[in-house]
Amino acid sequence: MNQIQVGCRIGYQVNSPTTFLFNISVTQNEHQQTVSESLEVEPFHQFEECAVSPLGNRLVRLSVPPGPLTVNYRATVNMNAQQADATEVGETPYEQLPADVLTYLNPSRYAESDKLLRFAMDQFGTLLPGYSRVTAICNWTFNELAYLPGSTGPTTTACDVLEQKSGVCRDFAHVAISLCRAMGIPARYVAGYAVNLNPPDFHGFFEAYLDGRWFLFDATRLAPVGGFVRIGTGRDAADVAFSTIRGDAEGTQLEVWANEQESNDQLLDPGNVSTAVSSA
Amino acid sequence: MNQIQVGCRIGYQVNSPTTFLFNISVTQNEHQQTVSESLEVEPFHQFEECAVSPLGNRLVRLSVPPGPLTVNYRATVNMNAQQADATEVGETPYEQLPADVLTYLNPSRYAESDKLLRFAMDQFGTLLPGYSRVTAICNWTFNELAYLPGSTGPTTTACDVLEQKSGVCRDFAHVAISLCRAMGIPARYVAGYAVNLNPPDFHGFFEAYLDGRWFLFDATRLAPVGGFVRIGTGRDAADVAFSTIRGDAEGTQLEVWANEQESNDQLLDPGNVSTAVSSA
Amino acid sequence: MNQIQVGCRIGYQVNSPTTFLFNISVTQNEHQQTVSESLEVEPFHQFEECAVSPLGNRLVRLSVPPGPLTVNYRATVNMNAQQADATEVGETPYEQLPADVLTYLNPSRYAESDKLLRFAMDQFGTLLPGYSRVTAICNWTFNELAYLPGSTGPTTTACDVLEQKSGVCRDFAHVAISLCRAMGIPARYVAGYAVNLNPPDFHGFFEAYLDGRWFLFDATRLAPVGGFVRIGTGRDAADVAFSTIRGDAEGTQLEVWANEQESNDQLLDPGNVSTAVSSA
Amino acid sequence: MNQIQVGCRIGYQVNSPTTFLFNISVTQNEHQQTVSESLEVEPFHQFEECAVSPLGNRLVRLSVPPGPLTVNYRATVNMNAQQADATEVGETPYEQLPADVLTYLNPSRYAESDKLLRFAMDQFGTLLPGYSRVTAICNWTFNELAYLPGSTGPTTTACDVLEQKSGVCRDFAHVAISLCRAMGIPARYVAGYAVNLNPPDFHGFFEAYLDGRWFLFDATRLAPVGGFVRIGTGRDAADVAFSTIRGDAEGTQLEVWANEQESNDQLLDPGNVSTAVSSA
Repeated sequence: MNQIQVGCRIGYQVNSPTTFLFNISVTQNEHQQTVSESLEVEPFHQFEECAVSPLGNRLVRLSVPPGPLTVNYRATVNMNAQQADATEVGETPYEQLPADVLTYLNPSRYAESDKLLRFAMDQFGTLLPGYSRVTAICNWTFNELAYLPGSTGPTTTACDVLEQKSGVCRDFAHVAISLCRAMGIPARYVAGYAVNLNPPDFHGFFEAYLDGRWFLFDATRLAPVGGFVRIGTGRDAADVAFSTIRGDAEGTQLEVWANEQESNDQLLDPGNVSTAVSSA
Repeated sequence: MNQIQVGCRIGYQVNSPTTFLFNISVTQNEHQQTVSESLEVEPFHQFEECAVSPLGNRLVRLSVPPGPLTVNYRATVNMNAQQADATEVGETPYEQLPADVLTYLNPSRYAESDKLLRFAMDQFGTLLPGYSRVTAICNWTFNELAYLPGSTGPTTTACDVLEQKSGVCRDFAHVAISLCRAMGIPARYVAGYAVNLNPPDFHGFFEAYLDGRWFLFDATRLAPVGGFVRIGTGRDAADVAFSTIRGDAEGTQLEVWANEQESNDQLLDPGNVSTAVSSA
Repeated sequence: MNQIQVGCRIGYQVNSPTTFLFNISVTQNEHQQTVSESLEVEPFHQFEECAVSPLGNRLVRLSVPPGPLTVNYRATVNMNAQQADATEVGETPYEQLPADVLTYLNPSRYAESDKLLRFAMDQFGTLLPGYSRVTAICNWTFNELAYLPGSTGPTTTACDVLEQKSGVCRDFAHVAISLCRAMGIPARYVAGYAVNLNPPDFHGFFEAYLDGRWFLFDATRLAPVGGFVRIGTGRDAADVAFSTIRGDAEGTQLEVWANEQESNDQLLDPGNVSTAVSSA
Repeated sequence: MNQIQVGCRIGYQVNSPTTFLFNISVTQNEHQQTVSESLEVEPFHQFEECAVSPLGNRLVRLSVPPGPLTVNYRATVNMNAQQADATEVGETPYEQLPADVLTYLNPSRYAESDKLLRFAMDQFGTLLPGYSRVTAICNWTFNELAYLPGSTGPTTTACDVLEQKSGVCRDFAHVAISLCRAMGIPARYVAGYAVNLNPPDFHGFFEAYLDGRWFLFDATRLAPVGGFVRIGTGRDAADVAFSTIRGDAEGTQLEVWANEQESNDQLLDPGNVSTAVSSA
């Protein structure tokens, strides 16, 4: 078990009456238990917390008048991810995939797996099924793409990234997700906090469905998956924007942190491929 | 109440061991009650029925060896759609949208609303909110696009269609869905059977979330919405393909039908805009 | 006749041996005669001037070692554009277009007219042929697009712009060029200096081939076409980049100017549609 | 010297007054000399031959009333391509490229080299410059893409093909051209007849500018480059469509042939990489 303290401080200058939707609160499940949590809005405004079922993403909705706005979130979380020997994790045969998991084979806005069937098959079609095939997809993504902040934007898709060969964490995740889906492996996007991410920021990574559960992967190798604290899960980044703005507001501040408080288990290295980690 | 008999007969030549996923069975809810239903597979193979929660799409999964395959589905359904005076149906304010409905504001694979914000605002931004604004989006879509079978394919998106100005039912739905989402109106894709569709085929249309529930719309004006029998619901056509094939099989036959058996209520004309219809 | 003084001052920090290609010198033809001209490179390096036939674009090629680099160009030009009564300028029938002009009906990198045939026909197909139809295309472009610096980049195409409904001068030109070509009217991109452009910068506009010659148009209405001094002509902006860099250099300075020195003819208003102007 | 007889027979049903532009006549230059040539139009209509300078593409323009139309073209050509030892063909340094050749570094409609700079550099950046680098680009294109008739259409671009990993001859050429340009090697599209092409059809291949002249390449390996008879040259397939139709006509027949009549020189194998061939 690891205890991790996460949080963020987000500031805006609001120019007209605006409704915000924040997706910054940590998910609560058996692998990720909240010890303490606080959300402060300055100046104070009434807010509403609502959850997207069945994924459990927690949204904070807030309508404010013009003026400055700051949102402070902090949480202490006990992580109890499930680990498995990667060599023993196989792929779930298509005939046995649960109906709700089948959805994660469908192409989505930023992960156009339907256009990449031959691409994926050419690259990964001869590999043995299993955890190692998703690892191969991550390695390929890591090796082929340059991590280049500023090289992509909010409407950039996996196919765009495969052309320009560069991107940031969300792009790496979209590429790997697309390739997994194209190979018949259900895959979905996860947004979260990440210990040891440098510079600190929100992080985007992904999960692939293998052997009857969802395993965490990160093609960027920027931080250890054991230090990921889940905020939200979705088909791709479109489903887990940390902030959605209806109105007119400009960001003035963004600080994000994630620190390991105490640890019984040492975090595995980023890029570790022998231990499979599951937290969903 | 209208009683509608629907069905389809789908044939394949299967060339290698193949798993099929059929999404052809009618949805069951309070507005759409199944009187009788049958699914026959020739030659007989064991199949599994599974449902995608929470939408209730019913999937039939079937693994078969090489050889011919025919699937026969027929159902008799009592439709009891809810009607409302369109002039009294307003938009649900963003602050009050249920969390699970917020998802249908997100862009999806074939409905890239994130790229069309200014486009939608230029066209529909000055209109009064409400049912009539979605009607305006449907009218615009109907007037701007040519219905041209063969002009689009399985990877065609709303933006593609807006460039080429032509498409089929799924494309009309994707364009209207994208424009609704860009205007802040949740919208989703519906696949179904449709009475009086000519030539008979599966149909694609959409729902917009207004005044606390989902209302049916069809920008093609090809058939009356009161005669739509829902098969499945999703973000866009990616979620409700009537047939998904893992393996090697070629289609040899496709027949689809939808006939009104008896009717207490006359079907409204396609393109009717005064009565709002809801069946979700 | 108008006398116009134009020029630019471009600075770079060169980080490795780099070859520059500058397309900043004014074109010389019967409508545009150079009274005086100078090009200074600081620190001095040998450069080569070469011209792209048959268009007459003049390129300056320069290879430099690491260090700062400044290029100063200034020219005084007598403009003697040909004017015509716009109402008397018709379209040249397709059967009579010169072979070399036919090339400007072909789609190009940033002007994908081949995708917009139906789009253009729907919008402009019922209009009478002639200068007024190109004017209608310019008006439509001006009305539909927002002029929004920073909203597009170097790989943005006309179709991208039609989706996002915003762009800068080169994007307005690409949209209008695409629509002209789709209507069967040869059109090409022109880069130049422009009197009264605010803020001063290089400008991009276009020419359409009507009645046997090329007429100037500018869908942005930012500056009078009579004050345009041609630098280069091409299929689209890909052909007339003011600076092309092979190596590693960062821009440090860009100043551009165009001032009317003396004038016998008053410049027509931007957006004037009664007098057709030709300078090619 | 090889003597090659080429020709085509193209039939249409013309539904309304239509103007055709045919680009089917062979180019005439020092490497390709026309021994005899005929063009028959049935029923007879006056036609005009015009040439695009400076490339020398020959266009036949023809306006016809409704009814059937057949065009018969045949030519006997003496091919006298220039050969060179591939190992001695280097790249022309950027500083020495002629101004008119620089144009072929620009991206074009179907060859978006501007989007593939990093892609090309990752793949080919460490290779030694010269003929062998273009060969490497051809080999990569051949190995990565599946030749799959029907998988692409008239608006398909190099980037589309790199995603879907399949195409036909024009797509192979567009990919290779894009990669060459992205590496700083001028490249252009060539349409022609091709001996030993099976099934017979018009063919699309490309030229790269090396060591001061244009060398022929074909990434499909479908036919020997020595048996290519040039019809036209352009930036990409947009410039050399064999038939352009303004009006309403449907193709009813297309036959194309290219036969070696007599030969002093044996045609080199497709995929030969030791002898460089130049015919421009």
